[in-house]
Amino acid sequence: MDVNGRITSMSIAPHLVVIGIGHVGSDVVTNAATLGLFSRISLIDVDNKVRDGQALDNHQATGVAPAMTTTIEAADYDACRNADIIIVSAGPSVLPDSYGGSHDSRNSLAQVNSKVIRDVMSNICHYTHSAPIILITNPLDVNVHIAATEFDYPTNLIIGTGTALDSARLRRHLADWAGVSPDSVQAFMLGEHGATAFPYLSHASIGGLTISEATTALGLEPLSPDQVAHDIVQSAFDVLEGKGWTSSGISRAAINVARAILLDQRSIYPVCTLADGVMGFHGEVSLSLPTVVSSHGVEHHLDITLDDWEQEKLLISANAVRNVYESVRPA
Amino acid sequence: MDVNGRITSMSIAPHLVVIGIGHVGSDVVTNAATLGLFSRISLIDVDNKVRDGQALDNHQATGVAPAMTTTIEAADYDACRNADIIIVSAGPSVLPDSYGGSHDSRNSLAQVNSKVIRDVMSNICHYTHSAPIILITNPLDVNVHIAATEFDYPTNLIIGTGTALDSARLRRHLADWAGVSPDSVQAFMLGEHGATAFPYLSHASIGGLTISEATTALGLEPLSPDQVAHDIVQSAFDVLEGKGWTSSGISRAAINVARAILLDQRSIYPVCTLADGVMGFHGEVSLSLPTVVSSHGVEHHLDITLDDWEQEKLLISANAVRNVYESVRPA
Amino acid sequence: MDVNGRITSMSIAPHLVVIGIGHVGSDVVTNAATLGLFSRISLIDVDNKVRDGQALDNHQATGVAPAMTTTIEAADYDACRNADIIIVSAGPSVLPDSYGGSHDSRNSLAQVNSKVIRDVMSNICHYTHSAPIILITNPLDVNVHIAATEFDYPTNLIIGTGTALDSARLRRHLADWAGVSPDSVQAFMLGEHGATAFPYLSHASIGGLTISEATTALGLEPLSPDQVAHDIVQSAFDVLEGKGWTSSGISRAAINVARAILLDQRSIYPVCTLADGVMGFHGEVSLSLPTVVSSHGVEHHLDITLDDWEQEKLLISANAVRNVYESVRPA
Amino acid sequence: MDVNGRITSMSIAPHLVVIGIGHVGSDVVTNAATLGLFSRISLIDVDNKVRDGQALDNHQATGVAPAMTTTIEAADYDACRNADIIIVSAGPSVLPDSYGGSHDSRNSLAQVNSKVIRDVMSNICHYTHSAPIILITNPLDVNVHIAATEFDYPTNLIIGTGTALDSARLRRHLADWAGVSPDSVQAFMLGEHGATAFPYLSHASIGGLTISEATTALGLEPLSPDQVAHDIVQSAFDVLEGKGWTSSGISRAAINVARAILLDQRSIYPVCTLADGVMGFHGEVSLSLPTVVSSHGVEHHLDITLDDWEQEKLLISANAVRNVYESVRPA
Repeated sequence: MDVNGRITSMSIAPHLVVIGIGHVGSDVVTNAATLGLFSRISLIDVDNKVRDGQALDNHQATGVAPAMTTTIEAADYDACRNADIIIVSAGPSVLPDSYGGSHDSRNSLAQVNSKVIRDVMSNICHYTHSAPIILITNPLDVNVHIAATEFDYPTNLIIGTGTALDSARLRRHLADWAGVSPDSVQAFMLGEHGATAFPYLSHASIGGLTISEATTALGLEPLSPDQVAHDIVQSAFDVLEGKGWTSSGISRAAINVARAILLDQRSIYPVCTLADGVMGFHGEVSLSLPTVVSSHGVEHHLDITLDDWEQEKLLISANAVRNVYESVRPA
Repeated sequence: MDVNGRITSMSIAPHLVVIGIGHVGSDVVTNAATLGLFSRISLIDVDNKVRDGQALDNHQATGVAPAMTTTIEAADYDACRNADIIIVSAGPSVLPDSYGGSHDSRNSLAQVNSKVIRDVMSNICHYTHSAPIILITNPLDVNVHIAATEFDYPTNLIIGTGTALDSARLRRHLADWAGVSPDSVQAFMLGEHGATAFPYLSHASIGGLTISEATTALGLEPLSPDQVAHDIVQSAFDVLEGKGWTSSGISRAAINVARAILLDQRSIYPVCTLADGVMGFHGEVSLSLPTVVSSHGVEHHLDITLDDWEQEKLLISANAVRNVYESVRPA
Repeated sequence: MDVNGRITSMSIAPHLVVIGIGHVGSDVVTNAATLGLFSRISLIDVDNKVRDGQALDNHQATGVAPAMTTTIEAADYDACRNADIIIVSAGPSVLPDSYGGSHDSRNSLAQVNSKVIRDVMSNICHYTHSAPIILITNPLDVNVHIAATEFDYPTNLIIGTGTALDSARLRRHLADWAGVSPDSVQAFMLGEHGATAFPYLSHASIGGLTISEATTALGLEPLSPDQVAHDIVQSAFDVLEGKGWTSSGISRAAINVARAILLDQRSIYPVCTLADGVMGFHGEVSLSLPTVVSSHGVEHHLDITLDDWEQEKLLISANAVRNVYESVRPA
Repeated sequence: MDVNGRITSMSIAPHLVVIGIGHVGSDVVTNAATLGLFSRISLIDVDNKVRDGQALDNHQATGVAPAMTTTIEAADYDACRNADIIIVSAGPSVLPDSYGGSHDSRNSLAQVNSKVIRDVMSNICHYTHSAPIILITNPLDVNVHIAATEFDYPTNLIIGTGTALDSARLRRHLADWAGVSPDSVQAFMLGEHGATAFPYLSHASIGGLTISEATTALGLEPLSPDQVAHDIVQSAFDVLEGKGWTSSGISRAAINVARAILLDQRSIYPVCTLADGVMGFHGEVSLSLPTVVSSHGVEHHLDITLDDWEQEKLLISANAVRNVYESVRPA
């Protein structure tokens, strides 16, 4: 009953909370507002001044004709109490020297951001254990593993954007190679988000054709998996060195995962989750595999077929993630 | 807990139920699927064959590249149990001779469709009292009054598309008159949906200019409220006589009201509701007035200022609706 | 220079012409308006009354808040002069007994609609030879062949929706079978639009997995190509018998092809075109094959790899189309 | 004829060029890509490294499932040759101390950015005189005046975002004050973009009600025009001080103007143009007034009715713009 004695409906009014409003968080908010699926977007940041400025700029943007109807507001963690989705982009961004794949630099970032994620998760857990959490903060796989294993949060609700971004890079790369739209390309990068991610080329396709068939049908230069893997990782560096950070692709990836959850899509996305009971893993690592994403967050994984090169790469990725995690494991 | 022992999230996954899948219901489903806000759309019709064909055609349409992710299915009333929004387009459509404004023809349609709405409402009430219901079936105002007063359904959750359609016609009419986009026109038709609807021209505007100012600024022929009222009502006949029914405008109007509810927009729409405590009415009639539409359905009405012509027209509309309702009032 | 002495810009303002406003044409207009890519949509029909009613209803629908800015108008063939895209849905719709695959019934429909298409093409050719034409009218492949070979219209600008609809049905079918979103399914039906269309299952995939791998990974009942082919064709009957016509899927397919052309997407779609220099054909037949669709209409075809079953089915489809075409070939 | 001897269609494939890829330009690209109206977006910046990084990040973002089909590329000024729209966000951003309204700080920014705009316009003029140019660079009105009067570019094709952003702020402000959606608010800020912009409150409305009527109907605190003017200008400072720049609102405003041009919308927007033959101005100043925006860019202005306060404010704005322009007028 509301104040007028009327029986109220159960409100849908999807509510997004974004934690960490730097370059990535800012683009997440822009993409979320444009999507038109959210009734309310709450912004949280350790720097209240930045948070307030971002909330106000984005809130005012909804007044641009033709207006959007989303409310965008500065908030604190208690906004998580009735969040439908939480996106975490807190912590310092990936830096060129930490992305590069040297264990030292990734370890350094992990030292800093593992603390950030533990702090964020503790704060979230005061208010909810039922909102799906989409993590973006790097090193992504390590942070997903922390969130999934060190808190009593349902593991199916912890999803990292993972190689969704690396896969977008691969998809665009193959599309440009073949001279077709990316919407006609099926391709995943799998494993660690970052230096050891590998292209799942044995099962990539272009208009349904295998990479090998497309090479012939379109008269293209053959691709080598190692070269493709290198080019995709290198392209991340190219963005970082040119722009200073990456935000456009990763924010779209996060928002599309949010939509898949909100609409119970059951889409198969290469996202980072606790690998438990799939591909021979038993919860010892978190990394990206093809995953059915639904309103439950992780609906289920798929046991996929890898060729020898891919199998080797997957294990390298798993080891890379585990080694960094060991360096930040609680005593 | 789900079967895997995982704690599941509270699902959002907005669910629409459409009851009555004729020309209008079919266009409602098409517009709802395109909107991309619904996870599931359930179709109900007394003719199961038509229902099944429409569900299948629309479900298959989601597979057209690039695919939509909505599930569209044939259903029975138990689908209302977890509906987030229900749209009712059941009953025979408006016929040219019943729209025309003669009380006889409207009374005839009311005899038939009051039974339809009572049946539909009874069926809905078996499964839910918390889903907002958007009514389209004509004579619209009479049917809203039946739904709002004869059942124990919360009156704030009963909304008819009302003059949202007539207002769209007016807005387009004024836009074409002024040579500008309809998105630069603010204009409402109010009162009864149909023959006695009247243009609220004293408060219409074009790019912020009053109609009188716009007439001068743009060097246009002056408008007479009576002529405009006539032209808008006549345009409905023109559609009916040309096409055999009206469906494009009304289905868009219904879907936009649904979105306003789902996203808790608090948009001001001219929709039909029980007029209770507004403009001097005390629940004796249902008709269209500017209404704040939120996740509560009707958030509240606005007491607006009418000029003498408009005030007279509002009372004529109220009487027209009440007279038809009297003819179908339960003994 | 315009009347004010100003130098004007080259207008983009995409302009769509739709010819034939029955059930399908009506849904085409609705989908085109919702898409938001067109500045103007012109409707042509041999029945001016229906055309006028449909134009008015759809034009008024653009006034529904929040307004769209498309202008929708009744027109004659001279609207084709500055059309950017033309969609042809003229002629009687597919009837249950003409769809079914008996040559007699398809021949009957071909007798009627070949005249319709020749008339439409003649009319179009008075005004333009540069607008891409998207054909929907059945028997589709025969009508595409007529348009592509009997007029001096550029063959790359003649595209039939072809098996884009059959493919949507397959995609949805496989998605439901696998319990995933259709956006995670890659699948084409190829050949004739209708009774002899066949699923290109050897190159279908679900989240990148082959059908065989997905069967295992998801623990599903194995699929037989013959059964799938039958089910997809049967589902078209089910729609026809239930609803009386098919319109939702086919209209979306046509609009998505239009968008691919307008935005120069280079998407690979299974659309019907003159098969000339591809898969061993040399212009003797028109049918659906994976085709790169760009601002040139047909950018190019792909020479794809078929297994034995698929190769046999392709030839059966080609023969079926040629046989019907022979029955309506000009003397 | 293309290389295959086929007659090609006239390509639509809308092409956007964005010049200046800082915080604002980056958000412009993101919004443009999401809009789905552009086939190609070309990025130009004096810093090629930043340009390349932004182009690559945004190009890769199109590969995020479900993929967009826009091509985003680093470019040089020759990309303007076939541009359909050009957006200019070059030059250093507004700084807190230059926005504040002190003539000194605005003059300083004008000294720098007048050179930037003259350079950009010279470069554009080498390649086109027919693409509408949307200017964002501050001080906006001065830069529009430079572009419109110092080059032989058609003045109807020079449009600054002007008070479209200030108007969005006002609209959002009034919506929050009234507790309704911004899509139910009609409100313009006019005059200079920045310190002297004023709210056109005499013609603002909320659900059709005047501000005064809405105050009564909703039981709200009355608004004072001076206070509203102050609050809106102050809110820009609040964004700048919090976030360090403004980008979300202004980029959406630019993109919506672009869409209005591309689709020939004839929407009435408060944009900055050469004021010539309107409101008593004769080309001596550029500032924001309600303007019909079409495929011609500026279709025409409206002679609007101002109350005394508004009339005074307009002249203050005009003087403010002219004074700054005088300080950078060519010798």
